[in-house]
Amino acid sequence: MELNGVQIEDEFAEAFPNWACRVIITAITEKWALQAATEATGFATSAIGCPCEAGIERILPASETPDGRPGVAVLFFAGGKKKLKEQVVERLAECVLTQPTTAVFDGMPEAEERIDVKLHFFGDGYEYQKEVGGRNCWAIPIMNGEYIGEENFGIVKGIAGGNFFIMGENIPAALMAADAAVAAIRNVPGCMCSFPIVASGSKVGSNKYKFMAASTNEKYCPTIRDRVEDTKVPEGVKAVYEIVIDGIDEAAIKASTKAGIEAAVKIPGIKLITAGNFGGNLGPYQFKLYEIL
Amino acid sequence: MELNGVQIEDEFAEAFPNWACRVIITAITEKWALQAATEATGFATSAIGCPCEAGIERILPASETPDGRPGVAVLFFAGGKKKLKEQVVERLAECVLTQPTTAVFDGMPEAEERIDVKLHFFGDGYEYQKEVGGRNCWAIPIMNGEYIGEENFGIVKGIAGGNFFIMGENIPAALMAADAAVAAIRNVPGCMCSFPIVASGSKVGSNKYKFMAASTNEKYCPTIRDRVEDTKVPEGVKAVYEIVIDGIDEAAIKASTKAGIEAAVKIPGIKLITAGNFGGNLGPYQFKLYEIL
Amino acid sequence: MELNGVQIEDEFAEAFPNWACRVIITAITEKWALQAATEATGFATSAIGCPCEAGIERILPASETPDGRPGVAVLFFAGGKKKLKEQVVERLAECVLTQPTTAVFDGMPEAEERIDVKLHFFGDGYEYQKEVGGRNCWAIPIMNGEYIGEENFGIVKGIAGGNFFIMGENIPAALMAADAAVAAIRNVPGCMCSFPIVASGSKVGSNKYKFMAASTNEKYCPTIRDRVEDTKVPEGVKAVYEIVIDGIDEAAIKASTKAGIEAAVKIPGIKLITAGNFGGNLGPYQFKLYEIL
Amino acid sequence: MELNGVQIEDEFAEAFPNWACRVIITAITEKWALQAATEATGFATSAIGCPCEAGIERILPASETPDGRPGVAVLFFAGGKKKLKEQVVERLAECVLTQPTTAVFDGMPEAEERIDVKLHFFGDGYEYQKEVGGRNCWAIPIMNGEYIGEENFGIVKGIAGGNFFIMGENIPAALMAADAAVAAIRNVPGCMCSFPIVASGSKVGSNKYKFMAASTNEKYCPTIRDRVEDTKVPEGVKAVYEIVIDGIDEAAIKASTKAGIEAAVKIPGIKLITAGNFGGNLGPYQFKLYEIL
Repeated sequence: MELNGVQIEDEFAEAFPNWACRVIITAITEKWALQAATEATGFATSAIGCPCEAGIERILPASETPDGRPGVAVLFFAGGKKKLKEQVVERLAECVLTQPTTAVFDGMPEAEERIDVKLHFFGDGYEYQKEVGGRNCWAIPIMNGEYIGEENFGIVKGIAGGNFFIMGENIPAALMAADAAVAAIRNVPGCMCSFPIVASGSKVGSNKYKFMAASTNEKYCPTIRDRVEDTKVPEGVKAVYEIVIDGIDEAAIKASTKAGIEAAVKIPGIKLITAGNFGGNLGPYQFKLYEIL
Repeated sequence: MELNGVQIEDEFAEAFPNWACRVIITAITEKWALQAATEATGFATSAIGCPCEAGIERILPASETPDGRPGVAVLFFAGGKKKLKEQVVERLAECVLTQPTTAVFDGMPEAEERIDVKLHFFGDGYEYQKEVGGRNCWAIPIMNGEYIGEENFGIVKGIAGGNFFIMGENIPAALMAADAAVAAIRNVPGCMCSFPIVASGSKVGSNKYKFMAASTNEKYCPTIRDRVEDTKVPEGVKAVYEIVIDGIDEAAIKASTKAGIEAAVKIPGIKLITAGNFGGNLGPYQFKLYEIL
Repeated sequence: MELNGVQIEDEFAEAFPNWACRVIITAITEKWALQAATEATGFATSAIGCPCEAGIERILPASETPDGRPGVAVLFFAGGKKKLKEQVVERLAECVLTQPTTAVFDGMPEAEERIDVKLHFFGDGYEYQKEVGGRNCWAIPIMNGEYIGEENFGIVKGIAGGNFFIMGENIPAALMAADAAVAAIRNVPGCMCSFPIVASGSKVGSNKYKFMAASTNEKYCPTIRDRVEDTKVPEGVKAVYEIVIDGIDEAAIKASTKAGIEAAVKIPGIKLITAGNFGGNLGPYQFKLYEIL
Repeated sequence: MELNGVQIEDEFAEAFPNWACRVIITAITEKWALQAATEATGFATSAIGCPCEAGIERILPASETPDGRPGVAVLFFAGGKKKLKEQVVERLAECVLTQPTTAVFDGMPEAEERIDVKLHFFGDGYEYQKEVGGRNCWAIPIMNGEYIGEENFGIVKGIAGGNFFIMGENIPAALMAADAAVAAIRNVPGCMCSFPIVASGSKVGSNKYKFMAASTNEKYCPTIRDRVEDTKVPEGVKAVYEIVIDGIDEAAIKASTKAGIEAAVKIPGIKLITAGNFGGNLGPYQFKLYEIL
């Protein structure tokens, strides 16, 4: 099929279950909420080499946050509940509580599964319980006043590894399309792009170096297209980007895949959209492009 | 003493030795170099709870980078060489190599101590050695072309924990001053602010909760000023921020402390500048404000 | 009355009728739509010395624009229809048509009063009519492809001069509150802040220089508070900012005044909110703070 | 000749004398200096339809401004001295004096030709003379304290219309290259790009509509390439952007042309760089690409 003149391959993204936690970070202005969110979700592109996967879900206007201040919703993903809890605790403690004027709130109050994030002991006895926006929070005296934080967060069985590939006739085209896709996905609730754009695709293992758990996926590399027999890079394509999406449920992955592709194909110079999988034997979720679009 | 009408306390910052590594990240435009640098230096405010300390040193114009593209210099700090190497490897592998159009170069070619950061095995045999800007690099085929990277980086015995405190009559004043200080420090080579602004000061241990390794430093908390006998918060001060500086040498810490304080005292509403220490018995470095200013 | 602990004076803003035109500017990405919108609405703070008043109303997601691309809605205001038309023509011709990848659409298709903005003659015969998103547009060949533009725009009898004043204990507090107010107003449809923050209030005429049509309103100047008998600056206030709002109707002025004040009073260090008028004899519109809040 | 694999045509830019004035705008932080500078230089792309040409020359660190605050240097250009003075007066009065925490300083203290910009009457007798950073300024009480301004500015015979064209295989490539060129030019002192990127080239007059003073230059329009006999658009080029540069002297135009082109050719997908002229009979200045590069 074609979308806006761009060929779409009949492929599917293969994805995996992952635990997800949403934290709402607010601050005195959007700038400071965003800065704390950025620090807290850094070094979190891929669970392969990072402690977790994390990213900004979306900017929240003051009218949508518990304390009526500008905010940012962030999502954390990990394979296990224990790992997820550990990372949420560390990242809130080191990268949010320490930042100017922040407060944090549970972003999934309706979830049944829950984790404790007990930071209030940091108050050394000066902390106290306080209701803010209908939430049971702890107020901890710090240098710029009081840090306000909920300490119990909902978690859900989410999905990691939703994806699609953008192939363009040159880097600027593919990069602008990938950037436009990520911007569009930012408007879809329930998901985030932890990378946010992937420039280097991996395959499991390595043909040459047996000690490597993963190595470059030569089939998607334009510069060695002529040397790879089963290359997936069409003629005329000079740059490929992958958008990897983690979502709290299948609907979020589908909606964001659709929004991202629709934004990408509007950029001139895009040749092909496809998706990545391992043949369908590894991941329990399959997101078929033709069904989604 | 006073500076621009703001009282400066006769105090000193107590700081500690730490290994430092500088990486130059370039990309097709400054935007993309900055995005990779931000991801690679996230979750790295304090070595207490983060895997390392890291931050952006400064933006580099194309004329100052090995490959003539826009760049960003980032600094990584860790207590041990092994930890430093491990973190530089992971962060370059997961957060830079994977990002659009990036290349990395050694930022301390003159340093005697060196670490290897061997990412080229990712190329699975398609990688090759290539000279770029007079540097011996590896070119690894990836989806948007070739990732270019040096694989040997200089490290030096740097310093962590340079600091000063900004006390203001309200949050906006103290926060604008802290932000101005960080912006001024961004112009000083050889240092970075990993937090970049600290809103919650810590003391070693806890009086109430014996299981806590650190807890809020109640002496610097304005909201409980009346309940803390030996408070360091002067009357009329409602917000305190700490600027923590890691530098590659003493000169960098001194220059950045001076630049930061001079920027901060220009903001109306600032009442006092001081520095933090543990009495001088723990850290081998003492940065005295009166000598620096 | 008090709001969030900040005193609100029982005052009203006195405002005036003004013709208003809304233009939707789209581009390949939000960045480029925003750049064109910024250029087109520059040198347009006050109709006193600028050719018109203009500003960005709000950012539009791709889903809300006629051509499905990211966009920005801008508003132009002028006292007369002829002046308004002249300015919309010049600003679209010089600052939007000339900018990368732009298209423009009528932002008030339902308005009865209309102005023509005929730019298609620029096409020198190569232009042609084209329907885009259900709108009758002209496509003009230019260097980056085709400029797409509607040429008939709705105008309405709007209102200029809605306002409120923010008084703070120092510049950072008042400025952060003013900035927060403007950000909140950006979320309210139908209005914009052409300045966007006013740091210098005027009075009609001058006591000392008879040739001046307007001069500083000494009653709102903190530095000369002691020398002005009828000063309106309360003790302890060091900085005053005025937010001036132009809106397409009374509802927009009211909603934005409310949103702006509610955002401003959340910032620590704000002492008083009031509004400006000329005694009620000049302008036909009176926006009373107590009624609005 | 070729540069980085991109063909450079043996062409020249034809430019014209123009009066130039540089104003240094400072503020409490760079953000606010930039905001005032942006407003003051808006609606100023081309002197054809705008009151003047204006743009940001460069960001100034606090160490380079008279009052030691962050600043922005802006340049104004006009054909006549009278028009230039009128525009500098209006734009400083309406768009800088009115903005938060601004001060303005003469950016060409060494120039012999000078214009007066008397804003101090706005002070209505409360203004007074004050030396700031060795400059004779007026201090005018306004709502956020005192506006500080020099009132005598150097002007020089500068040059308008330096230019070059970037032709790319698609819009994203040409646009990224144009953006990179403008960023590189921002680092060259003495010049600015008023547009800053031109997407619509003009020719003098119109073949079809005799009442038009200018119309689209069909020779540079990719979409009608097949219908224009003497098209200058090479096969495979889908997007053309022009960078127009105004400079205070020939050296600035040359240096910025060189810097801009060198940045542009580094972007993949660029096919040709050329320059625009009217045959050499109209403008007294000719900037030959081959001599400059």
